[in-house]
Amino acid sequence: MQAQASTVSQSSSPYFDEARSAEVVNARMGPEADARLRQVMSILVKHLHEAVKEIEPTHEEWFAAIRFLTETGQICSDWRQEYILLSDILGVSMLVDAINHRRPSGATPNTILGPFYVANAPEYPNGTNICLDGKGEPMVVAGRVTDIEGNAIPDAKLEVWQTNDDGFYDVQQKGVQPDSNLRGVFTSDSEGRYWFKSVKPRHYPIPSDGPVGKLLGAMGRHPNRAAHLHFIVTAPGFDPVITHIFTPDCPYLSEDAVFGVKRELIAEFNQVDDIDAAREVGLSSPFWSVSWDFTLATSTTPTRATP
Amino acid sequence: MQAQASTVSQSSSPYFDEARSAEVVNARMGPEADARLRQVMSILVKHLHEAVKEIEPTHEEWFAAIRFLTETGQICSDWRQEYILLSDILGVSMLVDAINHRRPSGATPNTILGPFYVANAPEYPNGTNICLDGKGEPMVVAGRVTDIEGNAIPDAKLEVWQTNDDGFYDVQQKGVQPDSNLRGVFTSDSEGRYWFKSVKPRHYPIPSDGPVGKLLGAMGRHPNRAAHLHFIVTAPGFDPVITHIFTPDCPYLSEDAVFGVKRELIAEFNQVDDIDAAREVGLSSPFWSVSWDFTLATSTTPTRATP
Repeated sequence: MQAQASTVSQSSSPYFDEARSAEVVNARMGPEADARLRQVMSILVKHLHEAVKEIEPTHEEWFAAIRFLTETGQICSDWRQEYILLSDILGVSMLVDAINHRRPSGATPNTILGPFYVANAPEYPNGTNICLDGKGEPMVVAGRVTDIEGNAIPDAKLEVWQTNDDGFYDVQQKGVQPDSNLRGVFTSDSEGRYWFKSVKPRHYPIPSDGPVGKLLGAMGRHPNRAAHLHFIVTAPGFDPVITHIFTPDCPYLSEDAVFGVKRELIAEFNQVDDIDAAREVGLSSPFWSVSWDFTLATSTTPTRATP
Repeated sequence: MQAQASTVSQSSSPYFDEARSAEVVNARMGPEADARLRQVMSILVKHLHEAVKEIEPTHEEWFAAIRFLTETGQICSDWRQEYILLSDILGVSMLVDAINHRRPSGATPNTILGPFYVANAPEYPNGTNICLDGKGEPMVVAGRVTDIEGNAIPDAKLEVWQTNDDGFYDVQQKGVQPDSNLRGVFTSDSEGRYWFKSVKPRHYPIPSDGPVGKLLGAMGRHPNRAAHLHFIVTAPGFDPVITHIFTPDCPYLSEDAVFGVKRELIAEFNQVDDIDAAREVGLSSPFWSVSWDFTLATSTTPTRATP
């Protein structure tokens, strides 16, 4: 305690005052605080106090915020992470992702992970159809995984997941959808090629029956995500890519509720109405054909200002 | 949707980009959003993005924040409000209070409510002893409620609450402490006088076994509040006062964990070692005598910049 008290200079009172509020709070941190935590908390307290001073909340508004934060925590469960949703709809998830993945030009950019990733999904041989409920418009996705110079990356792991044609992920409808519906792990072949069958993704709302959905509605925003497939592509020695590919014809493409769309991630979806071609890939006709290559940058320390 | 899309000018892309992140997010709000919510969210998003850009969190740090916020919500119950604690230890509760209670000089200043206020505590006649568990050093508190000119305010309601001598409020120890121990409502008499008996307050830690306590520890801060009694003093036509009085000899006076101390709220506690005086007030000797007046400002619209 003596040590803490001595960090407050004689001329600045340790007691709260409105003008010096953030300074008084930050001066209280002890010398034993971890340097990074001290930095993070100082910045958070500074901006939080600045925001409160600019907003000048009434007591009722402050308490509405307390209630909102509490309810956002309380609705979280093993299958629902409302705070990630909040981070998503405020653009924070995309911002953190951008800060941590400043890649060289030409590399496939990241976008957000989202709350529905599941580790240890089934591993399949290339060509497998991951749509287990038979709903939706058939689609084949094929392409290559390469480095920035175009060299094949064999044995890259491609994790893919998407909603079903009703707009729900398997984990949102346990017992309704088959386990691991529209979710699987593929491996690129010796020429870096991968391919699999699925159904054309469609737009869907993020869970909007909780505090975050109510906030979205109050802000005059809709909860819809632009139609997409999720991918995580990893290969030893390369920077892992967590990304989506988007359909070009989705009405929400420029209004994605979580700001996940990047122009470089909008794919071409070609409709193929050809019985022979359909038979060849093992789908009914017509089907959607998507050609998509992933370009991986070599592993580097992210270009961040802080350790 | 068309309306929202049209608010994005031709020259600024609706897609996320790191430099324009807060602008992209705030441009998405629809015309139907309430004006005050639009203002509040715009300010929050601006400062939140500024803080994230300054911090440059790793993905792991971002997820630690998500986990912290989730756990802080999940530990909340009918008798525990961890988000109010968080607001308290970051100085936000005091700041919101200060913004909303800019009183004329001479009026008793506010301090924070804290999480242990209970409405509808027992009403007692002046002179009642609110200490029902018999622990601690006996104390009598007496004074007047007046306006700024010194005129008596009769029939003012004084709600008082404090911890017991073990440092716990009754609601933290249901079944251990008598119901409504050290909690009561008094009414000023025709000359504005009030008086009651209790025990000398002592410092105590805020609940530190949850996420907020862990954060405090990591910041090198202790969880102790400077010893105090809580008061809410209300009278028709006057600005309600939510405040504390502090003992002058508490070792945590300049290090209150929630920044609640204001110099004007530090009282004198006089020890009286006089059997006759003790008999007169109905206490054992020695006892503590505290003289404390409350000065109420007339009701006014708070001087805040926003409605």
